[in-house]
This record gives sequence, structure tokens and C-alpha cells, in this order.
Amino acid sequence: MPKYIVGGVCAPKGFRAAGVHCGIRKNKTKKDLALIVADVRCTAAGVYTTNLVQGAPIVVTKAHLKDGFARAVIVNSGNANTCNADGAEIAEGMCALVEKYAGVPKEDVIVASTGVIGRPLSLAPIEAGVPALVGELSYGGEGSTAAAEAIMTTDTVRKEVAVSFEVGGKKCTIGAVAKGVGMICPNMATMLCFITTDVCISSGMLQRALTEDVADSFNMLSVDRDTSTNDTLCILASGLAGNAEITAAGADLTAFKRALRAVTTSLCRMLAADGEGATKLLECRVTGAKSKKIARTAAKSVVCSNLFKAAMFGADANWGRVLCALGYSGAPLDISKIDVAFRTANGYLPVCKGGAGIPFDETFAKAVLSAAEIGIEIELHDGHCKATAWGCDLTYDYVKINGDYRT
Amino acid sequence: MPKYIVGGVCAPKGFRAAGVHCGIRKNKTKKDLALIVADVRCTAAGVYTTNLVQGAPIVVTKAHLKDGFARAVIVNSGNANTCNADGAEIAEGMCALVEKYAGVPKEDVIVASTGVIGRPLSLAPIEAGVPALVGELSYGGEGSTAAAEAIMTTDTVRKEVAVSFEVGGKKCTIGAVAKGVGMICPNMATMLCFITTDVCISSGMLQRALTEDVADSFNMLSVDRDTSTNDTLCILASGLAGNAEITAAGADLTAFKRALRAVTTSLCRMLAADGEGATKLLECRVTGAKSKKIARTAAKSVVCSNLFKAAMFGADANWGRVLCALGYSGAPLDISKIDVAFRTANGYLPVCKGGAGIPFDETFAKAVLSAAEIGIEIELHDGHCKATAWGCDLTYDYVKINGDYRT
Repeated sequence: MPKYIVGGVCAPKGFRAAGVHCGIRKNKTKKDLALIVADVRCTAAGVYTTNLVQGAPIVVTKAHLKDGFARAVIVNSGNANTCNADGAEIAEGMCALVEKYAGVPKEDVIVASTGVIGRPLSLAPIEAGVPALVGELSYGGEGSTAAAEAIMTTDTVRKEVAVSFEVGGKKCTIGAVAKGVGMICPNMATMLCFITTDVCISSGMLQRALTEDVADSFNMLSVDRDTSTNDTLCILASGLAGNAEITAAGADLTAFKRALRAVTTSLCRMLAADGEGATKLLECRVTGAKSKKIARTAAKSVVCSNLFKAAMFGADANWGRVLCALGYSGAPLDISKIDVAFRTANGYLPVCKGGAGIPFDETFAKAVLSAAEIGIEIELHDGHCKATAWGCDLTYDYVKINGDYRT
Repeated sequence: MPKYIVGGVCAPKGFRAAGVHCGIRKNKTKKDLALIVADVRCTAAGVYTTNLVQGAPIVVTKAHLKDGFARAVIVNSGNANTCNADGAEIAEGMCALVEKYAGVPKEDVIVASTGVIGRPLSLAPIEAGVPALVGELSYGGEGSTAAAEAIMTTDTVRKEVAVSFEVGGKKCTIGAVAKGVGMICPNMATMLCFITTDVCISSGMLQRALTEDVADSFNMLSVDRDTSTNDTLCILASGLAGNAEITAAGADLTAFKRALRAVTTSLCRMLAADGEGATKLLECRVTGAKSKKIARTAAKSVVCSNLFKAAMFGADANWGRVLCALGYSGAPLDISKIDVAFRTANGYLPVCKGGAGIPFDETFAKAVLSAAEIGIEIELHDGHCKATAWGCDLTYDYVKINGDYRT
């Protein structure tokens, strides 16, 4: 089983990272430029937003990852470099700066930007900041932490995770940093997330593992149903763990995928818990579904419902809103078979059996739903498939944060 | 052209209405039971929620409307009579009370309920209230007003409208009452809305006119993307205007449809403006689309975006969120051709041309977006189809209202 460890993206062998303030953001105490550099050329894979409006960095990253290899990641916060006439030029310019100061060919650089859409991004502060950024690169956990901080926007906590596991008797590691608290409803991709690993694995197998993973991890996450224009999830594999290269399905790929899932699931929970304005993490587990697709659709519909999210903020056991969200999800469900229960650290509260309400004590319900993590358990009694989705409550602060984000 | 007049559902010839407090709601100053009765048997049509969870009253109403005729509508607020084991029995019981006290065969009664889902509804207060309700029935506008008040839940203003127009030289009238401020994202149907008319029209033509109308009226409305379990829109046509019966397409059907659209569009604007917690009405007009479907999809995606809705609350001209919502709408759009502008009583503000931002004055932008009604004008430069969608801003009060709705 994968074991959680410290170190983030620097935990796997052969990765350095750093984060600095270069001046894209006015607040000098807030880092706004991150860099991850591998010692060797890595196999690499990525998934991106399905929004038709795509940030210029995504276009550039896709071109650079076409050959399945990469060695560095440069990311700025404070500006999404999206819907700008010169966006691609700026994004290419960022990659060229990594070549100039860190010696990584620009075609092997992944680039990403996050922040306001439609505001021109100047290369000047980035050009001024990259030398210091390269100078700060570190193999230690502090490098990962600085990078994780530099990609944050309205995030209130940084998101880092790492796991160790074995492939063919060799100790392997996966690490990651991520950001994202609003405009979060990934679809075939996610917000910004960069994963490193020292596993030796082919580009093809890496892309396959990543694509299969997101269907049950980031694609099951929503803060506000708004699919971002800049969602980017990339993984770099240095191969320095010394395992025999994974080039086909089998026990080694399975071990890798299990470790990858541990990393991505952990990040999904962190991202949902830190959703803009959120006070509660919602984890909806659907079981007994006829198909995986039905289970996913049903679970995601519940965590996406504004009404249900507001009820969770108020610790109101309004389970009718769960059934309502299941009913309009588009999944073919037999409502008369559905059971619903809430489970938290404060207790277990069944509220609906066979599609109809069952009596419960309101005071106890309030206590159960006052926990910081709320499990919504939905049994469809219609098959053996299951899925989990993550979300957060809808609060006054979500409105406050998004009522005046730009100024 | 249709002319707006007073009188609501009592404006057309042959309709009486009333509303009373019978005790379903604890607050005695809040009416909770409404009745509309026609002097003659009417042709009738309805459209309903597409949610798989359907309120028991919808099942009963569908059965009663199967023959295309009806004469009365009974509605309670304070309880949705949904997800209750005895729901259909209670709904049938409500119709039987109308037969007993108003003399309308129960198979000609439309029944609807709105309020909390999953709380058993007792027939007792309704049985006690119906005699007084029948006694209060009035042909005057006060009857329509009382009925409009009795169907309100968290609505802050009642919704009534009426128009007069001509069909074949005869003066005709359409009137309506509606409710709905939360769990509003109708799909092939709407919240509760009851329309009366004295036009003489066959059941078939009435259903066709209604179905065609909702595609551009209620289906283009969203408060919170939550499609209710109890959405019901019914229309009753008494035929007392004296026009030659409309039994096929032609000038008469066109005149009727134009008047119907005036009624439904007016209601959509009222419903959006009174959306739970709303301070602003959003009206998104998409033009230059390759197809009607694309125009509808694009317009609705914008008014559904939580992020955009929160920005409008804050009078923040964050047009990147408009493009983001267009991009994930699912409609095939050429982003590089899109122009966006905001138009309100305070001024006109173009913000995006050809998919890229254009400079604007932030102080003027704030002033423009501080109006109570905000027009979002999107030109796709890709064809000649257009559509309009209605929504409202996302505010602290939406969260407050829905954080503790049941108690």
C-alpha cells in the first residue's frame, strides 16, 4: 500500500523546485512564480481543460508535450494569460527564460498561468525574477513548499502531497503540488496540478495511467461548477527509482496507478476543503449503481447542487435536496430504491429509505452536520458499481470572494 | 401587439380565484392554499419538471389532464408533497375536496404543491380550509392576487400578469400567476405557473403553443441550476372570448403565441429578479449564432455561472467569466469572433472584441453594473440566430435563505 510521506514534488529522486515573488502580484509577501526542474529528461503526460476558451500556456504546453517528454515546469500566479492577443508569445517567452537560465531546452518546458482572465501579462517581471528563481532551486521539501505557495491564488492553504510505494521491489515515490479553490469543476482535466515521480515508465503508459486516474479523481471534484480555462494537470517521471521500465499493463502499472490514486484523491480532498469560502468538505459516496458512469453522474450532481451546498453550510439535514439533485442528474435511477445517510465524526444519520423520508431527531442531525467533513452515503440498490465525488459548502465568503475578485 | 393589463388569472372571461391561510404553514399571516375555478370546462395543457423525482401532485395532474380538459386548479404552499409514501392519495384527496365543495369533477382538477420535500402532508388543514376558500372565490383582480400570494414560498413579491390582444377581431385575454425563487432551473417545464385565457383553442393547439413557448421562456431561466421536483406550468382556455376555435396553425395561433410569449417573458423577468437573495436581474442576449440551439445554450450557460453571478453582485466587470462560461457551455463556438458588452440604465460598456479584452474605465464600469437590471450582450458573428436567458446575481442572502430553509 502507498505510504504518505513529506517532501511534495521534491520527494521523488531527481527533482528540484523553487518559488519566488517576481512582481506580477502587487503584494510583495505573496510568491507568484514557481519552477520545477528535473535532473534528467522525463517521460511526461498531461490532461487539460475541455473549455473552448483555453489559456495560451495550455496551447504551448500541449505542443511541448507532444513528444511525451519534458524536464521543467514554470508557473505564474496573478494572471491567467488567457484571452490576450499576445498570449502564446508570452508563454513561449517564459519557456525560453527557463532555457536561458536553467539550461533546459524550451521545448522540454511545461508552462502554466493562473489568475485573472483577459489582462495582458508582461514578460518583464518574469524575466527579472527567473535568475533568482533558478538560484533558489532545492532538492529539499522547502523547494516544493515554495513552489506550492507560488501557484496559489485565493487558496488559503498550500496543497502538497507525496507517497512512497514499491514497484518490482524498488522503492518509488510520487509527489505533487496543486492549486485551485474557485472556477473548479474539472472536466477531463483539472486546475493546476504538477506531479513528479521517479518511477521508470513509458510516456504512453504514463498518459494512460493519468487519463484513467482523473476520471475518478479530479473529474469528480467541484467547487462551483465553473470549468476553468486554464486547468492543467501534468506528470513528470524521472525513472531514477531504478525499477524496470513500465511499458505495458501488469502488476507494476497497477502498483503505480494505486499510488497515483492515493496522491490525486488526497489532493481532491484538499482542494474541496479549501474551496472558495468553504467551511466544510463534502464527500459523496454512491454505491449499488448499475454502472460506473451512473455512480459518477449521481455523486457529482449532489456535490454540485447550490441548494444542497447551502444546506450543508447551515448544517440543515435537507435530504430532499439530495434526492432532487439525483433526480435531475441525467442518470437513469430508480428513485424508489434509494437510501440516503449522512456520516461524520459526530455520528451516523440515516434520512431516507426507499426514496421516502424516515424520522430523525433534528438536534442530533444538527450535531452530525456540524462536523468539518460530511460524508453523504447514497445506496442505489441497483448494482455493484460505486463512485465518490468531492465538493464543499456554499457560504457567504464564496460570494464575498467572487463579488470582487479583480480589484 | 399584446397590451399589458391588470387582473392576473381573473382578467380573462370566466375565471374566479382565491387564496386563504388553512394552517399548513405555521405563520397565520401567510396564505397557503389557492384555488382557481373556471365557469366552464376548459381545454388545458401542461408541461412538467424533467426531474426523475416528481412530486405526487404532478403524477395526479398528468392523469387528470390526459383528456386535454380541466376546470380548476388547487395549490398549497409550505409542503411539496414529494417523496412521501402517501403522496398520490393526498393529492387525489385535494382534488376530491374541490369536487365536494366547488362542484368540479375531481378528474377536471389540476393539483400542485410547493415547499419542503419529504415532509408528510396532512389533508386535515386543507379539508378545513377549502369551504372558506370556495366562499372567497372572486372574478375580480383581488381573487388573482390572493391566489398569487397563497402559492409563494420564499418569494418576496407576488407574480401576476395579464395581457389583452385580438384574435380574428375578438378581444382576448391571457392572465397568469406564478411562484418560484429557488430550485429554479426549469427544463422542459418550470416552477409553479398557472395561466388562464378566454381564447377558444383546441387542446392540441394549446399544448403545442405552450410547449413551443417554454423553450424560449421558462427553459431559459435559472436562479440556481437546481431543477425542482415540482415544476408545473398549466394553462386553461375557457373559450369565452368568442373567437373562432383555433384548431390549426395560422394567423390566429400566431397572435395567441405572441400574447402567450408576452406573458411568459414577463413572468421570467419577475421570477429572475426575485431569485432567492437576488439584488439584480441578469438578461443575457446572444445574437449572431449559427443555430437557435447554440444561442440558447450559450445564453443559459452565462446566467448559470456562479462565478459570473457573484461578480454581478459585486458590480465587477469580470468579462473573462462570461467567456469562460461560453467556453464550457458545450456549444460549438469560435471564441476568436466573440464580442461582449454590458448594457444597463446607467450606460453601455463594451468589454471584449474578437475574444480579447478592450480597455475600459473601471469607475464607469462599476457605475454601469450598479444598475438593478444588467443586460449582457454577446455577439457571436457566426450566423443569424439569437436567444435570451434570465438569471440573477449570487448574494449573501441566497446562502442565508438556503442555509436554513426548513427550520
